Amino acid sequence: VNARPPQSTGFAIAGTGIHMPQRRICAAELDRLTGQAEGSTTSRFGVVQRHWAAADETSSEMGANAARAALDDAGWDATGLDVIIGACGVMEQPIPGTAVLIQRRLGLGGSGIPAFDINATCLSFLPALDRVLAGFALGEWQRALIVSADIASAALDFADPEASVLFSDGAAAVLLEAGGPHRRLASRMASYGEAADVCQLAAGGTRVRLGEDVAAFAAQAKFRMDGRAVFKATSRRFPGFLAGLLDAAGVAADHVDVVIPHQASAAALEHLKRALPDGHARTIDQFASIGNQIATSLPHALHVARITGRLRPGQIGLMIGSAAGISLGGAVFRW
Amino acid sequence: VNARPPQSTGFAIAGTGIHMPQRRICAAELDRLTGQAEGSTTSRFGVVQRHWAAADETSSEMGANAARAALDDAGWDATGLDVIIGACGVMEQPIPGTAVLIQRRLGLGGSGIPAFDINATCLSFLPALDRVLAGFALGEWQRALIVSADIASAALDFADPEASVLFSDGAAAVLLEAGGPHRRLASRMASYGEAADVCQLAAGGTRVRLGEDVAAFAAQAKFRMDGRAVFKATSRRFPGFLAGLLDAAGVAADHVDVVIPHQASAAALEHLKRALPDGHARTIDQFASIGNQIATSLPHALHVARITGRLRPGQIGLMIGSAAGISLGGAVFRW
Repeated sequence: VNARPPQSTGFAIAGTGIHMPQRRICAAELDRLTGQAEGSTTSRFGVVQRHWAAADETSSEMGANAARAALDDAGWDATGLDVIIGACGVMEQPIPGTAVLIQRRLGLGGSGIPAFDINATCLSFLPALDRVLAGFALGEWQRALIVSADIASAALDFADPEASVLFSDGAAAVLLEAGGPHRRLASRMASYGEAADVCQLAAGGTRVRLGEDVAAFAAQAKFRMDGRAVFKATSRRFPGFLAGLLDAAGVAADHVDVVIPHQASAAALEHLKRALPDGHARTIDQFASIGNQIATSLPHALHVARITGRLRPGQIGLMIGSAAGISLGGAVFRW
Repeated sequence: VNARPPQSTGFAIAGTGIHMPQRRICAAELDRLTGQAEGSTTSRFGVVQRHWAAADETSSEMGANAARAALDDAGWDATGLDVIIGACGVMEQPIPGTAVLIQRRLGLGGSGIPAFDINATCLSFLPALDRVLAGFALGEWQRALIVSADIASAALDFADPEASVLFSDGAAAVLLEAGGPHRRLASRMASYGEAADVCQLAAGGTRVRLGEDVAAFAAQAKFRMDGRAVFKATSRRFPGFLAGLLDAAGVAADHVDVVIPHQASAAALEHLKRALPDGHARTIDQFASIGNQIATSLPHALHVARITGRLRPGQIGLMIGSAAGISLGGAVFRW
């Protein structure tokens, strides 16, 4: 019997990197696009600006840029990777997955390095991280790359300000190594498919097909969100979920040093901050200027926590968020 | 030090189930659809019939049916599941993922059972299985459901017989339990993104968007495959891949009792059979009447190997195949 459970096996984050698209959309432009009164995007939604990919920019291109930045940060040669996991919210194209497209852009297209994708919409990074840490614990891998990359702006409906101004595009990459100072103390995910319809993008898969009625298809190719229903479905479950996660980690709420959340919305972040002691000071909040980057938000926030030195050795970090599904997810680390 | 490496931790397949759509398309109809001379679909491609989903049938519906059959087979109550993993080749819709849609259809929409997706196109079942076995080895889960469900017929271009007549629709589900007689001896995946373009479905994600030119979008919403290039990219790498996998498992090629392959094409299956001693007798081949069901083929073939009694205790099973990416993947088991 091991004294230390295998899920506590140490790991290191060897490098992180992000890619932000060049194009910035200011709040005034978002006011105009969404037909709101001047100042509404900021006053109603806490949005100062957004970043959108250019029409010819792709998720794999942004993801590869983020991965290169992470490789530079770590001082690693990409050929030494044991696995590449795409942890995106939406795909660049249905076949093949984004991970192999990123692999190719990294010059690894002939390498044989396994590349596949894990999808839990905005929370994709968390099950990807679980898979990597399990692979480390089992001795399958020593070095892993997780890349999240999303182009939310491809499917926004500006007739609905709430379902559009929240989102930005971008990519974030995290390089992980088996062995090292960090320990995952607990990880948890809870899905509630009964709320699958309150936050969805219907067209793009096999269910909604382009037929005679092009306008109907186009309408379903836009992201739809009933913000009130999402909040209702998540907020009532969130306190119990958080308490269970911290309990599983053996960490009291006031011992959480840094909160690294998905950047769902200003309201969701405010709700989270109030749920934790000293939450406003402890939470990475990039919502105003970076926004909800779908699955990229979590690793982007982790990157920020790391490069700003907010996460120091021995501290407790909490990654947490909600996603379409709906799902709640989180993980607790000792740094 | 453990005498038995953790990846050899035992597991059981407690139940399996499939769903086949009602609609059958005979070879003569495929000849007509693809503009080929009578008999060509069978003589050129070894296809006797295909199964296609109805226009209103969905992946999650088929997946839930397969899951119910597996639950009946196992005698399990769905509420006892620890995790649901969608291992589909293409998504039902971009947001949310297919796993939560299946969760909802199983009446588990309020259960909180975590549901997420793993995607490696036709090989998705293998990384999903890896994730489950890692979860078992780490004590994270005791009972897991993996469901593959795909509707290939949503994106076929009948102007290209080779890229259309190969495919069928359907779903397959596998219930796994920690502890039990089966052992995974080795698992391996190799991806080559340099061949990403030879087998792809371009439209449906964020890269190709519905704009003014509807016809251009529609053309890219069809599956494209350069069969010769796929064969070239996979066949030259396959012998080394297979040898490495068997070597990692410590199994000689003539000790493989049952080969459970992805049903890519008649030519691919023939190539595989010739690569293994007595391969023709040992290989599960459903290509003529069931066809390439994208990610569903692997768990469907596993279901057949199991319910027909071809896999007996102590025997060696080899799951193997190739996928868009391109990727090669395989796993070796002692049953």
